[in-house]
Amino acid sequence: MATGIDDEALDRRRKAARAACKSTLFGHGEIKPADQLAEIAQVDGGEVFDRYGEGGVLAELEADVATLLGTEAAAFMPSGIMAQQCVLRAWADRRSATRVAVHALSHLVVHELDALPTLHGLTLEQLSDEPRQPTPADLAAIPGHLGAVTLELPLRDGGNVLPTWDELTTFAQACRDRDIPLHLDGARLWESTPYLGHSLAEIVELADSVYVSFYKGLGALAGAAVAGPDDVIAEARRWQRRHGGNLLTLLPYAVSARAGLRRHLPRMAEYHEVAVALTRALTEAGIRCTPDPPHTNAFRMYAPATDDEINERVLVHLETTHEAVSSSWQPADVPGWSVTEFTVGAATCDTGAAEVAARLTRVVLATEGL
Amino acid sequence: MATGIDDEALDRRRKAARAACKSTLFGHGEIKPADQLAEIAQVDGGEVFDRYGEGGVLAELEADVATLLGTEAAAFMPSGIMAQQCVLRAWADRRSATRVAVHALSHLVVHELDALPTLHGLTLEQLSDEPRQPTPADLAAIPGHLGAVTLELPLRDGGNVLPTWDELTTFAQACRDRDIPLHLDGARLWESTPYLGHSLAEIVELADSVYVSFYKGLGALAGAAVAGPDDVIAEARRWQRRHGGNLLTLLPYAVSARAGLRRHLPRMAEYHEVAVALTRALTEAGIRCTPDPPHTNAFRMYAPATDDEINERVLVHLETTHEAVSSSWQPADVPGWSVTEFTVGAATCDTGAAEVAARLTRVVLATEGL
Repeated sequence: MATGIDDEALDRRRKAARAACKSTLFGHGEIKPADQLAEIAQVDGGEVFDRYGEGGVLAELEADVATLLGTEAAAFMPSGIMAQQCVLRAWADRRSATRVAVHALSHLVVHELDALPTLHGLTLEQLSDEPRQPTPADLAAIPGHLGAVTLELPLRDGGNVLPTWDELTTFAQACRDRDIPLHLDGARLWESTPYLGHSLAEIVELADSVYVSFYKGLGALAGAAVAGPDDVIAEARRWQRRHGGNLLTLLPYAVSARAGLRRHLPRMAEYHEVAVALTRALTEAGIRCTPDPPHTNAFRMYAPATDDEINERVLVHLETTHEAVSSSWQPADVPGWSVTEFTVGAATCDTGAAEVAARLTRVVLATEGL
Repeated sequence: MATGIDDEALDRRRKAARAACKSTLFGHGEIKPADQLAEIAQVDGGEVFDRYGEGGVLAELEADVATLLGTEAAAFMPSGIMAQQCVLRAWADRRSATRVAVHALSHLVVHELDALPTLHGLTLEQLSDEPRQPTPADLAAIPGHLGAVTLELPLRDGGNVLPTWDELTTFAQACRDRDIPLHLDGARLWESTPYLGHSLAEIVELADSVYVSFYKGLGALAGAAVAGPDDVIAEARRWQRRHGGNLLTLLPYAVSARAGLRRHLPRMAEYHEVAVALTRALTEAGIRCTPDPPHTNAFRMYAPATDDEINERVLVHLETTHEAVSSSWQPADVPGWSVTEFTVGAATCDTGAAEVAARLTRVVLATEGL
């Protein structure tokens, strides 16, 4: 019972500290609900509303995204979970297939309560369960007829790892050789272009369809898009309606996504560079990072203390300075070590890699005053 | 080919007229995207964001709705299509049932591309295909095990018809007698209380779960809620995640729904009274209405001219005065007659039933200047 009361007290402390948070070292910085609503109200909302998925700023956003990705069509979707089910079901139906190949650590497997098998009756065939991108050998190990193959770029739960450009083109060729559509889970595709060294359209050209997200790197409220051939996207839109994803209007998300594309897309190379500089500085200070150097703007960092210890230091720092230095830490495999994911965004760049590393290190390693 | 060009020209006229529209006689009035975004920014967004369906203003809205409806719990859903699938699947699963009883004119059958059978494998058993509410006899005609019975209040595609309070309690008792959960499709439940003569909580008490909508009568951006017992709503939330309905934040919808509850819910009796007065005046002028008097704030009106003629008059009026007097008209069953649905809202009340009837009649019956 004593633990229960302690947990409640800790929970109250965390909530109060989070509500009073004024700045962060990660991501795009701290924003309050009222400020985000005010920000959206500044964006051009167009002359007419989108209605049940058609028209208005939503249609303009979809056209912009299709152009950016070099596809025939794009459809806005409220969430990535919906987006990927809709397009993968479309591929499976047109191929009369019941199996889709995915990585065992992909979002589809780990975070979606088995939605694709449960709602769409599709079996998820696992390419690999290792924290790395799938290879042509992984694909070859799944014989038979497949509705689609998916690649998550980067593989987030595998530690934000990307394939090299050569690995990616080789894998895409392996899909083409077997005549299987390649679908890219591009929740963080915007963040992947610097490492891959190719434009969005060049990356997407290797595949048959792609999902992209408007929050995460782009910092929008929420929302996603699927892009690909006209007829596949038209089918995905019908599945979107069945999922309940055609809202009377998606205006706030559409304007927020457009603002995100304008504000953050041009800075992806900078976010990646700062992530590289930051991991270098953190490593020198005794915090270990992976991948090192990072493939995108996000990486895992490991510190030699328990998660309870580090989370307490981070919380005390937040309570006293109103600055959040990291997300919450979890136990690492190695006893006595902890791990968290760090995402570089506008807030990190504004503070600078050296200063972020210094502040992070002082709090996480408790070297303040030493 | 000539028709194609004419259609395009007409489409352009309509779009331009709609974009220039300044006021309407129906609903809550004309609002532009920028104004709606500005309006939302005025609402209290709270201290912290809702995250993936939890916390923030979203949680407060859910608590408000549960209190209002007298249920243990309520969950916000992005759309009604998602909301009803989630709760009906939850009922069916816990009863190991594969069939749900619905009206053939319900939204579930008419407007959702067979989502419930296709995504959830549930067979829709039709209570009736007539433009009236289902009766205990309709239910008795479907023997065997059912996951749930749904009632749409009002039955929109049946002409916005409600049962009387006695009919409703009798039907609810028939469900209880067979131990089948009764689910209310309450997309327009707020609008139904004056005719039923009972509070929201009294109506919902007759049932086991309910879906309500935040746009339509409440005028919010979009969004819905399901309400019912704690455990059923918890299951519905898991289906919501599978559907892709847990967005990073639903803040704009949550604040918009709260504003709608504050602004429009107290006026539902007024909207109904004005609808009754309006149909009386329209009937005197030669426009026929059904139901007469209306059960809610919405009714169908029939006029003796082709839909092309009336739509042209409505469009010319919109082009010249920037006032929309009605939605678009369709051919009625009787040759030479047309029909449209009219919804009374704040804009109708602000103009007044007599004046709305006079303006509508002049445009629709082309009596201007006679």
